[in-house]
Amino acid sequence: MTQKDERYKKGMEVLGKLTDETNLNLLKRFNDINSDFEDMMISFGYGEIWTRDQLDLKQRALITLSSLITQGAFDALRFHVRAALHAGLEPKEIVEVVIHCAAYAGFPKSVTAFPIVMEIFEEEGIKLEGNNE
Amino acid sequence: MTQKDERYKKGMEVLGKLTDETNLNLLKRFNDINSDFEDMMISFGYGEIWTRDQLDLKQRALITLSSLITQGAFDALRFHVRAALHAGLEPKEIVEVVIHCAAYAGFPKSVTAFPIVMEIFEEEGIKLEGNNE
Amino acid sequence: MTQKDERYKKGMEVLGKLTDETNLNLLKRFNDINSDFEDMMISFGYGEIWTRDQLDLKQRALITLSSLITQGAFDALRFHVRAALHAGLEPKEIVEVVIHCAAYAGFPKSVTAFPIVMEIFEEEGIKLEGNNE
Amino acid sequence: MTQKDERYKKGMEVLGKLTDETNLNLLKRFNDINSDFEDMMISFGYGEIWTRDQLDLKQRALITLSSLITQGAFDALRFHVRAALHAGLEPKEIVEVVIHCAAYAGFPKSVTAFPIVMEIFEEEGIKLEGNNE
Amino acid sequence: MTQKDERYKKGMEVLGKLTDETNLNLLKRFNDINSDFEDMMISFGYGEIWTRDQLDLKQRALITLSSLITQGAFDALRFHVRAALHAGLEPKEIVEVVIHCAAYAGFPKSVTAFPIVMEIFEEEGIKLEGNNE
Amino acid sequence: MTQKDERYKKGMEVLGKLTDETNLNLLKRFNDINSDFEDMMISFGYGEIWTRDQLDLKQRALITLSSLITQGAFDALRFHVRAALHAGLEPKEIVEVVIHCAAYAGFPKSVTAFPIVMEIFEEEGIKLEGNNE
Repeated sequence: MTQKDERYKKGMEVLGKLTDETNLNLLKRFNDINSDFEDMMISFGYGEIWTRDQLDLKQRALITLSSLITQGAFDALRFHVRAALHAGLEPKEIVEVVIHCAAYAGFPKSVTAFPIVMEIFEEEGIKLEGNNE
Repeated sequence: MTQKDERYKKGMEVLGKLTDETNLNLLKRFNDINSDFEDMMISFGYGEIWTRDQLDLKQRALITLSSLITQGAFDALRFHVRAALHAGLEPKEIVEVVIHCAAYAGFPKSVTAFPIVMEIFEEEGIKLEGNNE
Repeated sequence: MTQKDERYKKGMEVLGKLTDETNLNLLKRFNDINSDFEDMMISFGYGEIWTRDQLDLKQRALITLSSLITQGAFDALRFHVRAALHAGLEPKEIVEVVIHCAAYAGFPKSVTAFPIVMEIFEEEGIKLEGNNE
Repeated sequence: MTQKDERYKKGMEVLGKLTDETNLNLLKRFNDINSDFEDMMISFGYGEIWTRDQLDLKQRALITLSSLITQGAFDALRFHVRAALHAGLEPKEIVEVVIHCAAYAGFPKSVTAFPIVMEIFEEEGIKLEGNNE
Repeated sequence: MTQKDERYKKGMEVLGKLTDETNLNLLKRFNDINSDFEDMMISFGYGEIWTRDQLDLKQRALITLSSLITQGAFDALRFHVRAALHAGLEPKEIVEVVIHCAAYAGFPKSVTAFPIVMEIFEEEGIKLEGNNE
Repeated sequence: MTQKDERYKKGMEVLGKLTDETNLNLLKRFNDINSDFEDMMISFGYGEIWTRDQLDLKQRALITLSSLITQGAFDALRFHVRAALHAGLEPKEIVEVVIHCAAYAGFPKSVTAFPIVMEIFEEEGIKLEGNNE
């Protein structure tokens, strides 16, 4: 197997731990849009970055969510809330990233992120106990 | 004790786990600049956010570093690399946040962050094994 | 009354000057999402920041609108255009913030903000004279 | 003719090379919103900047698309993908700006931009060969 | 007088109310760098935006400071803290913009802005009473 | 040769067209900091992105400069002004990117970028004719 396929294969493997059917469909759509870009996403983004073992998937999910909220990338946030759940973060931990970002990126970013997070939770059938965790 | 002092006290407690003498001096400087602002930072930022128990200090450090790199807040990054070390993150884990952010915030942000992280490591007498961890 | 309730109470008081029924419903929704976060917004954002007397509500509205347009926080902008009207800013003054930001944050941010501002004006039954004020 | 009309006239001329009916309607809408702002956009943005001869329209389109993707100004991106096509950029070149920005602004910005670019292409009846160019 | 000179002249007039010798030297430097850009700054930025009468100079200073802190444009902030003082804002009001932005743009932006504001105050021989105003 | 070395080799080749001794030293420094990150920069950033043939080096330089100015990545801007010169952009064309960005990213970003660009020009012994080109 060439090394390109190897990075791509590793990327698909880690994505298998992060995605479910909804997300897999989103990724397939990118293959139709531009297979070069789709390859970069899978091979570099997932195959090279997410597979690195200095941090585990849950830690990488925290970093990713924080970056997305901070830069206001709310469309990508939808994908990664699901990925975070699959990585093993608890819903209350995902909520906590949004709250923590209020201090570091300002309340508007968190105020915009919150309903999106809750929307994904609802689609996934997740109910938060009380409403703090 | 009033609740204000209580939040401030909790903030100072968690800061005690995150700061050393260098950082404590930085904070004292803010008390001279504007004690209201200094109070908000300690009471809200640390007393209300960092003490929440849904995530531990190491996880909060990952989120904070990611937000700072993503928004290009490199001055604040200096403070928080030290805080992250004190929170218990290993140097190689801090380096990993910078690398992960290259995919999510772009290479320029990470390229600017890296020398800053290494500079703080050097000041703290930290040597990375090989240079990957 | 504990100090927590006191900050929250002050926050609700100033919000009473900034909100009407539409906005109040938006806030109630946050209490269902996460009451901790809702408390931080009301107690810190409004109870501690907006009540400070060094600047009045109209001045704070100018600062808030500018920050939101500059960072592209257009969802939060909807809330704050209404809040600005209630704070006492005239419609032509709100429009002026959008125009001023074109020079400081670039035309794309202002071009995106303008239709949103006009939409809120229309919902509030506001007609601008001529179309410059 | 006064110089104001001259800058405006030059702006409308270059816009004639960048717009079609869809975009022209968008601009007309701004004249109803605020004619001062509309004048600034046309006279300064197009009349002073886009007409400068140190770079041609295709080069300016590359710069504009890159800035919009980087700052996440996706509404304005719609207008400028069309303008870029009219300026003479090939669809594959526009796609290339999105891919290039993944390295410089991070994958989330490009991942959000891509479907928007494809949407405009579809509305314009553009089919990309294979799907890389 | 041509209209170009007229906008430029109006720009220089309002700058006369906003600048002192330090700032004037900064502007002269831009004329040597690129006179076209210098003309755009003076004629559009100051001649068209700052002279508009829907908001006064102090209000425009609030908007400008907020936008600069929010986007992290700390070099430009130095110029505009001085301009704000000349526009008539009191030091305590300028400090207040920094504090207000902590909630809307996050604490890191304000934490970086504060020492810069204090530095300009010191250069201008300004002493804040107590340290809250 | 493995494919990893192949992407790295292609990256070094294109860098050879973009760098001179100053820049090459900057890159070597990254190999000492973290060879994994250095590999990603060279293999992905340059080996995969800059070598793509849908756009040439001068066009990619325009896109890169625009993204860096827009996001305020001024440290990386230094590297890329030099790279742009080596890619074949004329000094007046690089200046033009800064001017164009004033409309799209706001004047503060361009005002900060300009002296940096001029500084690199001076270090490279470049004199602009008149001062508009």
